[in-house]
Amino acid sequence: MTKLDLPVFADVLAAAKRLEGMAIKTPVIESSWLNDLAGGRVFIKPECLQRTGSFKFRGAWNFISRLNRKDNPGGVVAFSSGNHAQGVAAAAAIKNLPALIVMPADSPVIKIENTKALGAEVLTYDRASEDRNEIAHRQLKARGAVLVPPFDHKYIMAGQGTAALELADWALENHVDIDQVMIPTGGGGLVGGSALVFKTKMPKADIYPVEPALFDDYRRSLIAGEVVSNDVTTGSICDALMTPCSGHVTFAVNKLRLSNGLAVNDHEVCAAMKFAFERLKLVVEPGGAVALAAVLSSKIDCAGKNSALVLSGGNVDAAMFAGIIS
Amino acid sequence: MTKLDLPVFADVLAAAKRLEGMAIKTPVIESSWLNDLAGGRVFIKPECLQRTGSFKFRGAWNFISRLNRKDNPGGVVAFSSGNHAQGVAAAAAIKNLPALIVMPADSPVIKIENTKALGAEVLTYDRASEDRNEIAHRQLKARGAVLVPPFDHKYIMAGQGTAALELADWALENHVDIDQVMIPTGGGGLVGGSALVFKTKMPKADIYPVEPALFDDYRRSLIAGEVVSNDVTTGSICDALMTPCSGHVTFAVNKLRLSNGLAVNDHEVCAAMKFAFERLKLVVEPGGAVALAAVLSSKIDCAGKNSALVLSGGNVDAAMFAGIIS
Repeated sequence: MTKLDLPVFADVLAAAKRLEGMAIKTPVIESSWLNDLAGGRVFIKPECLQRTGSFKFRGAWNFISRLNRKDNPGGVVAFSSGNHAQGVAAAAAIKNLPALIVMPADSPVIKIENTKALGAEVLTYDRASEDRNEIAHRQLKARGAVLVPPFDHKYIMAGQGTAALELADWALENHVDIDQVMIPTGGGGLVGGSALVFKTKMPKADIYPVEPALFDDYRRSLIAGEVVSNDVTTGSICDALMTPCSGHVTFAVNKLRLSNGLAVNDHEVCAAMKFAFERLKLVVEPGGAVALAAVLSSKIDCAGKNSALVLSGGNVDAAMFAGIIS
Repeated sequence: MTKLDLPVFADVLAAAKRLEGMAIKTPVIESSWLNDLAGGRVFIKPECLQRTGSFKFRGAWNFISRLNRKDNPGGVVAFSSGNHAQGVAAAAAIKNLPALIVMPADSPVIKIENTKALGAEVLTYDRASEDRNEIAHRQLKARGAVLVPPFDHKYIMAGQGTAALELADWALENHVDIDQVMIPTGGGGLVGGSALVFKTKMPKADIYPVEPALFDDYRRSLIAGEVVSNDVTTGSICDALMTPCSGHVTFAVNKLRLSNGLAVNDHEVCAAMKFAFERLKLVVEPGGAVALAAVLSSKIDCAGKNSALVLSGGNVDAAMFAGIIS
């Protein structure tokens, strides 16, 4: 078995340096409405306000900023349901690298359109019948391009971890001890990078991955002690979190650092999106709202605690959003 | 003529101290989409993320935090289309003071409901046929309460100015010279407090009040050199900015410090709200979006400049928001 190249905390610090002036330092927000409902303080990290509307620009830039047009004339290829797509497209455009993104045909229109608007070429596939890995690798070979993995890579995880680094640094500056952190989880990149940060800076904090109900492979993998897959490929409104299973790099990092996984259903996700609209004045996409949904539906006890959560993205089609808030 | 008690820059600094730990230090956000459209950098201060969903908590707390239950058993009375209402209700609740708010019957439901949810009593009136001043003063007398003016008071203006103070301090820390600032304007409290800040900290910056087309009394007052009123009391979707005319305290501060006024129509406001949804992932109410609308509709030239604008509030009913983004 190949030895995995795992990220460590220092990689997150290095990523933060690389991201300075490129990514937005998103704020930490507190809502008196949410605190009242939770019975404790809940600190919110709104990555929907990040460049390209999700945290994914962080990892993409940490990876792509090391490439250049001369050595990588074939540019980059990525597969993504849409947020990694936009992060890669934006990062590649800055580096003047061609980018091809393989996306499910049923991705939200806003994600496909934005990816194209950011200058990338988009190739769609059928989520239920085609293998995105295979399509991407065929393109990689044909173009002599570099693959930008969606989560299972040291640089990607370290980049995503910078969101948690900002959160932890804010908490330390404000003398707040965070007891628990809830992170939307697909392949495990964001939660893994976050776990590296908190287990170094605030080791007592429990880190909970939060997933859509039918896509709770992380929850089950943590119980099994090995990577297990989801039985389905469709059936959730959380398009950003319908990952087949965890990566091996991400799981190696996460299995030692995460508490049990939490899962929320579509109904709870919609309620969280409506709450974010009404109370937080933030546009959050379904997959970005799962951690908030876990708090609002009492899947996690926040009473008397200092909790933190990430709203990981805000790329949602207007028609869906209008329906959910109405 | 009574001498007006005008705020000075030091009042804003004092307000900032008073607001520490009570108000949210809202972030400064930059959007590559907006910069591309504007042809320059545009720094956004999203006060929709403020406690109670608008900047109004700042002024309300700066005023109400000086009162107490023992000396003010009658509590406070305010008139407001809804954002000042929520600011006053939240501040009064913290100080355990009873609060009565006189609101137009056609205020957005979310504003009336939130004001009640924050513990205030709400009295509605007909915007077209009744005088809110008269109703409020009748209640004041009956209750022995203190009036919390919506804008025309030193403490209110100084409180609102803290939003601009955070913006200016951010710009100084980040070595950004702001050339121009666009501020949503009703009675002139926010723009006045902001003008005090910028004319002290970044005196070269031009400050532009932005109003709804039919309610451009500030624009006309600046031309006339005296306070003139609007001819109408209804007819804009910007419920937060349908003020009859400027205050005298606010005008005295503003007439020496503002550049010409800008006005935007409902169509331009809706386009700005949709842009904020799609690109900024922020929920902005009509009145809160006028400065962004001025930039997007080229009412102000941002090419090659460093511009800043405030998104002043996000309290908008779901049905209206759904209609506008769809």
